[in-house]
Amino acid sequence: MITTNPFDAGRTQGVRRNSGQGPDGDDDTLREECGVFGIYGHEDAAALTALGLHALQHRGQEAAGIVTFDGEMFHAHRALGLVGDNFNAAATMEKLKGPMAIGHVRYSTTGTPIIRNIQPLVADFAFGGLAIAHNGNLTNALTLRTEMIRAGHLFQSTTDTEIVSHLIATSKATNLIDRISDALLRVEGAYSFVMLSRKKVIGVRDPLGVRPLVLGVLDGHYMLASETCALDIVGAKYLRDVEPGEMIVLDDRGLTSLHPFPRQKRRFCVFEYIYFARPDSIVESIPVYDARKRIGMELARESPVPADVVVPVPDSGVPAAMGYAAAAGLPFELGIIRNHYVGRTFIEPADQIRHLGVKLKHSPNRAALAGKRVILVDDSIVRGTTSTKIVDMVRHAGAAEVHMRISSPPTTHSCFYGIDTPQREKLLASRHSVSEMAKIIGVDSLAFISIAGLYRAMGHTARTEDDPRFCDACFTGDYPTRLTDRAGGSSSRQLSLLEEVA
Amino acid sequence: MITTNPFDAGRTQGVRRNSGQGPDGDDDTLREECGVFGIYGHEDAAALTALGLHALQHRGQEAAGIVTFDGEMFHAHRALGLVGDNFNAAATMEKLKGPMAIGHVRYSTTGTPIIRNIQPLVADFAFGGLAIAHNGNLTNALTLRTEMIRAGHLFQSTTDTEIVSHLIATSKATNLIDRISDALLRVEGAYSFVMLSRKKVIGVRDPLGVRPLVLGVLDGHYMLASETCALDIVGAKYLRDVEPGEMIVLDDRGLTSLHPFPRQKRRFCVFEYIYFARPDSIVESIPVYDARKRIGMELARESPVPADVVVPVPDSGVPAAMGYAAAAGLPFELGIIRNHYVGRTFIEPADQIRHLGVKLKHSPNRAALAGKRVILVDDSIVRGTTSTKIVDMVRHAGAAEVHMRISSPPTTHSCFYGIDTPQREKLLASRHSVSEMAKIIGVDSLAFISIAGLYRAMGHTARTEDDPRFCDACFTGDYPTRLTDRAGGSSSRQLSLLEEVA
Amino acid sequence: MITTNPFDAGRTQGVRRNSGQGPDGDDDTLREECGVFGIYGHEDAAALTALGLHALQHRGQEAAGIVTFDGEMFHAHRALGLVGDNFNAAATMEKLKGPMAIGHVRYSTTGTPIIRNIQPLVADFAFGGLAIAHNGNLTNALTLRTEMIRAGHLFQSTTDTEIVSHLIATSKATNLIDRISDALLRVEGAYSFVMLSRKKVIGVRDPLGVRPLVLGVLDGHYMLASETCALDIVGAKYLRDVEPGEMIVLDDRGLTSLHPFPRQKRRFCVFEYIYFARPDSIVESIPVYDARKRIGMELARESPVPADVVVPVPDSGVPAAMGYAAAAGLPFELGIIRNHYVGRTFIEPADQIRHLGVKLKHSPNRAALAGKRVILVDDSIVRGTTSTKIVDMVRHAGAAEVHMRISSPPTTHSCFYGIDTPQREKLLASRHSVSEMAKIIGVDSLAFISIAGLYRAMGHTARTEDDPRFCDACFTGDYPTRLTDRAGGSSSRQLSLLEEVA
Amino acid sequence: MITTNPFDAGRTQGVRRNSGQGPDGDDDTLREECGVFGIYGHEDAAALTALGLHALQHRGQEAAGIVTFDGEMFHAHRALGLVGDNFNAAATMEKLKGPMAIGHVRYSTTGTPIIRNIQPLVADFAFGGLAIAHNGNLTNALTLRTEMIRAGHLFQSTTDTEIVSHLIATSKATNLIDRISDALLRVEGAYSFVMLSRKKVIGVRDPLGVRPLVLGVLDGHYMLASETCALDIVGAKYLRDVEPGEMIVLDDRGLTSLHPFPRQKRRFCVFEYIYFARPDSIVESIPVYDARKRIGMELARESPVPADVVVPVPDSGVPAAMGYAAAAGLPFELGIIRNHYVGRTFIEPADQIRHLGVKLKHSPNRAALAGKRVILVDDSIVRGTTSTKIVDMVRHAGAAEVHMRISSPPTTHSCFYGIDTPQREKLLASRHSVSEMAKIIGVDSLAFISIAGLYRAMGHTARTEDDPRFCDACFTGDYPTRLTDRAGGSSSRQLSLLEEVA
Repeated sequence: MITTNPFDAGRTQGVRRNSGQGPDGDDDTLREECGVFGIYGHEDAAALTALGLHALQHRGQEAAGIVTFDGEMFHAHRALGLVGDNFNAAATMEKLKGPMAIGHVRYSTTGTPIIRNIQPLVADFAFGGLAIAHNGNLTNALTLRTEMIRAGHLFQSTTDTEIVSHLIATSKATNLIDRISDALLRVEGAYSFVMLSRKKVIGVRDPLGVRPLVLGVLDGHYMLASETCALDIVGAKYLRDVEPGEMIVLDDRGLTSLHPFPRQKRRFCVFEYIYFARPDSIVESIPVYDARKRIGMELARESPVPADVVVPVPDSGVPAAMGYAAAAGLPFELGIIRNHYVGRTFIEPADQIRHLGVKLKHSPNRAALAGKRVILVDDSIVRGTTSTKIVDMVRHAGAAEVHMRISSPPTTHSCFYGIDTPQREKLLASRHSVSEMAKIIGVDSLAFISIAGLYRAMGHTARTEDDPRFCDACFTGDYPTRLTDRAGGSSSRQLSLLEEVA
Repeated sequence: MITTNPFDAGRTQGVRRNSGQGPDGDDDTLREECGVFGIYGHEDAAALTALGLHALQHRGQEAAGIVTFDGEMFHAHRALGLVGDNFNAAATMEKLKGPMAIGHVRYSTTGTPIIRNIQPLVADFAFGGLAIAHNGNLTNALTLRTEMIRAGHLFQSTTDTEIVSHLIATSKATNLIDRISDALLRVEGAYSFVMLSRKKVIGVRDPLGVRPLVLGVLDGHYMLASETCALDIVGAKYLRDVEPGEMIVLDDRGLTSLHPFPRQKRRFCVFEYIYFARPDSIVESIPVYDARKRIGMELARESPVPADVVVPVPDSGVPAAMGYAAAAGLPFELGIIRNHYVGRTFIEPADQIRHLGVKLKHSPNRAALAGKRVILVDDSIVRGTTSTKIVDMVRHAGAAEVHMRISSPPTTHSCFYGIDTPQREKLLASRHSVSEMAKIIGVDSLAFISIAGLYRAMGHTARTEDDPRFCDACFTGDYPTRLTDRAGGSSSRQLSLLEEVA
Repeated sequence: MITTNPFDAGRTQGVRRNSGQGPDGDDDTLREECGVFGIYGHEDAAALTALGLHALQHRGQEAAGIVTFDGEMFHAHRALGLVGDNFNAAATMEKLKGPMAIGHVRYSTTGTPIIRNIQPLVADFAFGGLAIAHNGNLTNALTLRTEMIRAGHLFQSTTDTEIVSHLIATSKATNLIDRISDALLRVEGAYSFVMLSRKKVIGVRDPLGVRPLVLGVLDGHYMLASETCALDIVGAKYLRDVEPGEMIVLDDRGLTSLHPFPRQKRRFCVFEYIYFARPDSIVESIPVYDARKRIGMELARESPVPADVVVPVPDSGVPAAMGYAAAAGLPFELGIIRNHYVGRTFIEPADQIRHLGVKLKHSPNRAALAGKRVILVDDSIVRGTTSTKIVDMVRHAGAAEVHMRISSPPTTHSCFYGIDTPQREKLLASRHSVSEMAKIIGVDSLAFISIAGLYRAMGHTARTEDDPRFCDACFTGDYPTRLTDRAGGSSSRQLSLLEEVA
Repeated sequence: MITTNPFDAGRTQGVRRNSGQGPDGDDDTLREECGVFGIYGHEDAAALTALGLHALQHRGQEAAGIVTFDGEMFHAHRALGLVGDNFNAAATMEKLKGPMAIGHVRYSTTGTPIIRNIQPLVADFAFGGLAIAHNGNLTNALTLRTEMIRAGHLFQSTTDTEIVSHLIATSKATNLIDRISDALLRVEGAYSFVMLSRKKVIGVRDPLGVRPLVLGVLDGHYMLASETCALDIVGAKYLRDVEPGEMIVLDDRGLTSLHPFPRQKRRFCVFEYIYFARPDSIVESIPVYDARKRIGMELARESPVPADVVVPVPDSGVPAAMGYAAAAGLPFELGIIRNHYVGRTFIEPADQIRHLGVKLKHSPNRAALAGKRVILVDDSIVRGTTSTKIVDMVRHAGAAEVHMRISSPPTTHSCFYGIDTPQREKLLASRHSVSEMAKIIGVDSLAFISIAGLYRAMGHTARTEDDPRFCDACFTGDYPTRLTDRAGGSSSRQLSLLEEVA
């Protein structure tokens, strides 16, 4: 939900470790950009929010924040780093007083993070304070921002979330709910918001329901979270997904459900099933783990190949590989071991150490690879740099053949809805055919699941143009909202002239 | 220049160590709240600004910030702590690129400082970015803030400086200089601003000239600073003080002097001479060191007393004590030694250790005190707690008599112009006569310089009602500007509902 | 290799988070206590050592250290924390000059770690400096220490490694190799040492070969490491395991193999196969991954049970569970998801959150568990507290039945050879029968692999009393060395009177 | 009390900021190398020790340590940094339990400090633990160290204090006091020790009494400290100086005074009076402040010069300057202002900034200098680099003439007794006559106090060869002890081969 320029889908600020040379190949991964959590009326609101955010940590490791309200004051703690490192001190948690809380985790970049961008964002309004946490990305943020700056409004962060604050502040409506509705009617894009006012915790999902948001309950206290795994950790019951376009208001009257927006056909992000969501989460009643296994099975049916073992690229490729192995009747083996003690970087020693970067995270398990015809299963190919190195590593460990199977269709388009993707030209699949990609990556064969296969795995007979059910723009280019900023040519404008020195 | 509530002149946020119990009696001191620096067109702009801020460190030890502009981007580094600790790394300084820079140091509180309040404040305007650094305090900040929030503007900090940003942003004027003039015509209070746009470094002093701002030059490059000591450290030449109500614009056309405000009679803060400014600085052509010595001499003439030694309360009382001793023909002795290695706090051991707090900073020098009739010279009495302890310490070191002489008139009123003073009721002199104060502090005699004596020492025959020349409101209650916020009763309003957890 | 009291096998110093209440149940895990690495003659010695230690990080996460020698000076960097966090700065690595290096990683405790105990230990000897890194534990350390202190020797650390330094220092032999042999002939217990003198890198394995040590080569440069995974990461070739009782000397004459100790029958720690070593390592020619799968298969044959799914307790139970599933013909499912973003601790919220600790690390995957008869496969049961919580978590996720299968025999005895085990009374299996344990843990059935089954899986027909091949004392109580300290009753002596405040 | 090589009197380890180029010219200062404190039987032992060390902070700013004993355990906290920063947390102080405590502060270097060298040093002996804190330097440390290493003893630090530990450990005596006496009979040099055993706090001063140690009492509890200012801060009464060669034992029998060494004539370091001790301390009944003023007076009598003002180089030159001004009948003025907010370093901007280093610490006060004939009074000239810069700064501030008067005789020899002096060749006075020095420094005249004048100021009619009363070796080369290490040529030996990476 960093806007900078959504159509660059890169970041103009901060230092990036360059390209696939970096030891951890971070820029060869798609990353969910945020997770949100909110709870109303529980005496342990801040502690439960911390736990919920911990369970959502896979949606953002750069920074975390919690804001509470105790009836008189808002209390905020926002810090760079993991939830478990910043929200475990008794002194900190005791200061986050009050029975209402919202929280946010944010993605990790290798560059300089900016403290003023950490969420939840809090501001003073004529009606009192409001804290906002956002998962998603607005596609007319720059256009609105430029307009408001011209009208004399000051922006302090470089997040698109701040636009919503300004729209709420300038709404002519006389109550908070209407101001928020007003504001959201003006934005385009994908969003799941949780907000905290002095009286209410509010959750809203965009009319297409691109990003997830679920509703749970613990001992009569409602809570909102990006995924069900955040309900599980605190022992809460999963009630249902917040509906696309629905606004949930939690206050002393209990739960109120509003639908302030014109109804639209739902377009949930299918990549949440493929990769972003945690395997133990349930999205719109479908367990993510099951979805992944079914995709793997479908992939095996679509693209079989004679082989000895099916090996996942850990951790994300595991369920699809299990599904593939089961459907193909082949042994599933842990041919690649993941090292979880990864620090920042290492000084590169002599050249003879090939692909050090990938080795810091993954080790080949010779016992499962040597002499074998190996089917590697991964969830996606972004730039292709990591795949190339992993294939090379697997070959050096003695694999006789390496076949790669990808549990998503080719990623040909950038995402403008809250996923950190490279510019389109950097996406391997946008410039190359599958057979070219196979050559680049160095595999004996390469196959992606088809769009049709993906939809079958998700329980639909096929994708239909007028009601595709999912947002699959990164595979199809069929963006479900207007891309106003891009249309306006604003992609070339720099969002902020300010660079904060770490 | 923290507004919170200027009429409380305390801080509503953060934790304060309570009262005079604290080991260092910090709350028994008046503190200048800021220092500013700016330079245009020098290749070492950031390094020179860092040095200038180092020389101004006595005006604020809590935090420091520098913003530069390199022709394309603004670069900012703002951090808690001393200049010498935050702006000495090559890596940091190299990032502060560009030939234009402004900087700011900020006072130290014992409570939790808030990062978003660290200056210079930078914002994106329709015309581009602008960085602002402020020394002073606005007396209609709350009133303006409330007004603007009602109009839908969002405030991110709790500084009054941000008001000026908003006023500039909403000005209808079409160029930056006019927008700034517009904005400043709407504010009341005391200010010395330095600002940095993409083209200019701008310095402005309020029409009364309450806070200092001087102009210097180094190899043809102009610079602005709160005091001349910041020019000295970089080897720059002191040209003159910026005039009250003058706006200095430094850009590629050189130096332009504007006078956008109606002319008023100057009212420079006399306490800058007494205490705040560094003794080696020159303000409006008068060396501060000389002024202090002359005040001490005048004090000796006004309030002589038979004694053996004149002892300053270090460090601030030293020049006045030297003046007093010279005029009185008495020996000047260092009867109190100051310990400069002061850490934060110590755990208090057993009760028998009297006045530990003061002892962490000061030690009695028995050799200069035992058996002597001692005249202690200090610059002011605020709450009186520190004086009480120092007198007690001097008596325990064997002084036969202790007479206290203060080089300022009794401090009876709070300052609303950028000095951190306690609420009026906490000022000892607001509730007690001099003889009562003598009893409370435990001295054999106590005298303050008279208003008349102070003006004589400053080279004026007397203070005249219609042209007092100085702001001396803390002694006289004669505030030179309207106090709109207080009149509006807004003193009871809380500025922000947000408390940031450290 | 902390000695404190090896027969307490606990730590007398520092604060321990108490019992299984701790959120991460750390004290319910067996932990390898160290990993070592050494390289001779490579220009990138320090960088390669850092990488090797990174690959050995699973053997110790508390602290890491590297010592190099550049022909003139030793250079040491030893720090608390992960290798990847402490040995990645160019500035650090550049100071670790020279073509000879050894390194050490050390286990993590929940208490206060002591900097002076971080290895490699370096001392000045009459013959020059010597750095020592140790994996293992000496069983006559206290006895020797007491003896040497009585003779006037000073001990600075509380590690048993320091004993070896003193023995080397006081040896009457005239060259380093003989001094080391002398010293090691006096110690009992388990050890794999790497040492660095001004001329040599030396590796020694105890006569029983309890702890691992392997030899590799990269471009003609020899290296020593605890496991082959440390050779893989730097691209080195695995040559062979250092033999039990063998001393490898690397110097300018190349590699010299010495056997200074009386030959004994090898007794490699079988638990390295079961749990400690990384699955992609190869120990004495057997891939650890294969060993674990074979153990799982053997376990399925020994203890079948009707069920729907086989679920590993991640990460350590995975290969055994795969083996079990394969042999049993049952589906293998990831029914428990591991959260790798674990911080230190969380503030516990309301009581209704059951077993929060275990949930911070593990989440149940309902999709794989609900309504199923589940076979959980784990590597061992120590105190039983974690197992109890995991079983409870799996049941709450809807499992119809829960059967637990353990890929090691019951752990009934403490280890005195370098593994951090609780005191014997705290080991669940030392006080309870298998059926009692099943009740305590709350499973429908519980089975451990038999000693015979374990040996079969390892390729032996059976365990024989006179040549058991492995050290399996934790299962059998058959300790392969004398336990002098315990015999001497020194278990009650406090090692050091000093407690270092963090 | 770092030995490294006492005859280099420099440090062979760590990085030094080079020469007078450094901004703070640290290497142009003599530095006392340590301060010690000890207390027996007070419930607040650790807190009082922290305060005492705070008062002794001028004797060492690099590091501080406190060790307590609570009847069962020793508790130690040793850290880099100021006492006030490391010993103020309640959590820390609560862990330093027990009624017996000793503490140590250590000098500041610009290089890498080594944690293992921080005192008090604690070791386990056959008789139990012993903590040792040392002020001074041993002149046969290397010789003894070499001897002991040859005998198989291991050294862990590079301090000469550790030698004493080893000598105590190997003593054949049967009680602690005799072991300590034994050990000290073997060492040469200067020392004031405080030690802490399980039963006693012990203070010892070397037979010549080169370094100070005083005895005080607070509510019946005895304490030992390097200077009386440490007694004052805790409100303790100064009883007397510990005698040269006296050992004070504090235990449950009260105070015992022993004299285990052959009596010698006292040789207290006269430089403690001139510079090292705090002005408010009293040494051997003479207030340091008085001594300095008397030296200044004597200097005025010996070396008068027509002038307008007497200006001290702050802070150390102040009392001597006051004495000089009084005796000369000239005004005393603060012509140089000291900036106490000194950080580490600054990035040097353009060349036109002359002498930036000195300016970071000192500013010229033009008001007191311009047009004046100035007498600068300083305590010593070491390398002369700082003096040169200060004189230049004073001239640039407009001084008509600059005369320098030094309140010590020319420093021609290195100190081997605990003061950090440059090698002899680096001492300006060792290579140049006074008139040459005047030219180098750039003054119109230069004079040092004579040896005779110094002794007169100290109350002696003259210095006599056979009973000089003071150690004045740095002025006379008359070293009062043997310099065994130097005689043995061991000056060329490197003490340790180990360099610790920060």
